[in-house]
Amino acid sequence: MSEKPGLFISFEGGEGSGKTTQIRRLEEWFRHQGRDVVVTREPGGSPGAEEIRNLLLTGDPGRWDAVTEAFLMFASRRDHVERTIRPALADGKVVLCDRFADSSVAYQGYGHGLGAEYIRNLWALAIGDFKPDLTLIFDLPIEVGLDRAGARFANVSAAEDRFERMGVEFHQRLRDGFKEISQTDADRCRMIDANSDIDTVAERMISAVKDGLTRQGS
Amino acid sequence: MSEKPGLFISFEGGEGSGKTTQIRRLEEWFRHQGRDVVVTREPGGSPGAEEIRNLLLTGDPGRWDAVTEAFLMFASRRDHVERTIRPALADGKVVLCDRFADSSVAYQGYGHGLGAEYIRNLWALAIGDFKPDLTLIFDLPIEVGLDRAGARFANVSAAEDRFERMGVEFHQRLRDGFKEISQTDADRCRMIDANSDIDTVAERMISAVKDGLTRQGS
Ligand SMILES: Nc1ncnc2c1ncn2[C@@H]1O[C@H](COP(=O)(O)OP(=O)(O)OP(=O)(O)O)[C@@H](O)[C@H]1O
Ligand SMILES: Nc1ncnc2c1ncn2[C@@H]1O[C@H](COP(=O)(O)OP(=O)(O)OP(=O)(O)O)[C@@H](O)[C@H]1O
Ligand SMILES: [Mg+2]
Ligand SMILES: [Mg+2]
Repeated sequence: MSEKPGLFISFEGGEGSGKTTQIRRLEEWFRHQGRDVVVTREPGGSPGAEEIRNLLLTGDPGRWDAVTEAFLMFASRRDHVERTIRPALADGKVVLCDRFADSSVAYQGYGHGLGAEYIRNLWALAIGDFKPDLTLIFDLPIEVGLDRAGARFANVSAAEDRFERMGVEFHQRLRDGFKEISQTDADRCRMIDANSDIDTVAERMISAVKDGLTRQGS
Repeated sequence: MSEKPGLFISFEGGEGSGKTTQIRRLEEWFRHQGRDVVVTREPGGSPGAEEIRNLLLTGDPGRWDAVTEAFLMFASRRDHVERTIRPALADGKVVLCDRFADSSVAYQGYGHGLGAEYIRNLWALAIGDFKPDLTLIFDLPIEVGLDRAGARFANVSAAEDRFERMGVEFHQRLRDGFKEISQTDADRCRMIDANSDIDTVAERMISAVKDGLTRQGS
């Protein structure tokens, strides 16, 4: 049990924007400060949510329609919040989450066109007003991101590419969506220019985190 | 393609109340009239929905909390409606569905205590105002139903018993919930006394169906 209050930070942005790379950097940074850190990711992050993840990320792009997909995303998120995130925060841990509810707003709301308001209604029904203390949005031109993600998939054998195969227009709507989200929720969200080398992006991230924590007084 | 309009009838009620038995009788009855009949069931009824069914009906009673369960139910229902039910109705078929959205109102709304209004909000977000033309609710004292269902499971080897193991109070709330549903939606729903032999219950069902169809003018 730490005496510090729990802290919940989500990592958002398009495919290949560097979320998974940078989350490791921030994990190190917090560990150097003696904090207990839990790194988790969505969809997934709890045993039940991982089973739903498998339905969401494999198979044909048309396997689920947008509404079904949104319901599955929030089903897995509810499980993840109740069984992994809330208990860790109650223990005073830092929870770093690779994607969270803003990804549903971006992917199903903007990408698939259900609208941000529709997704925010589901958000409220699934987890009430639970949200990250801070959300880092990694912004990158989509060609750069898809190239990076494609290179990764050439190395790692992974079949979890259902969203990556959804086409350039889809990914452009995503990027625009994340920009709107950062404006709608300006207090919680920090946009990070991810189009630089890993160290430079990490520096930008750390200063966004310091700034965010100062403003929250933690 | 039939020239008759499609017709969507759902079968509701507690465990062992005779839904699956009576649906076969009504299927026969419609076939004798030359109608094309599709018999389907929830959760499930389309390839994607059947995969979600597997998550819902197996495992520990506490595997999912009530909210996660409700989201999974409506995810599977959305898939079922879009990919099985609507296309069959568009072809002029009679669709007989073993459980539908009223089961979510009863199980997650009344049984687990999320409330009927909460579930009806999810209903609207998942499938809009789509609903059965007629809903038959089979009513039975819960001990009789659980005895019948228990006897069936002694014969058929089935692991899909997650809800049956939820306890007597849960099943009493279900029964009360179905009564309230039939009053809230009195035009669409017909309560059928299921505590008689199979032939007698079938007669009651057929006359409820005739009555329902006459009132709809089909
Ligand atoms: N700043 C960077 N410059 C160049 N390459 C990078 C940079 N950051 C990450 N990469 C590489 O790009 C690929 C994608 O990065 P990463 O997996 O971190 O992105 P992601 O946002 O997690 O992607 P996804 O949404 O697909 O999970 C990896 O191969 C990673 O090593
Ligand atoms: N009217 C009846 N009288 C006696 N037994 C019956 C009657 N109707 C059905 N049964 C028997 O009770 C058991 C449960 O019936 P059935 O499977 O039709 O119920 P159900 O409502 O579909 O149950 P579940 O909710 O578990 O799917 C079966 O073994 C069936 O043969
Ligand atoms: Mg990643
Ligand atoms: Mg049955």
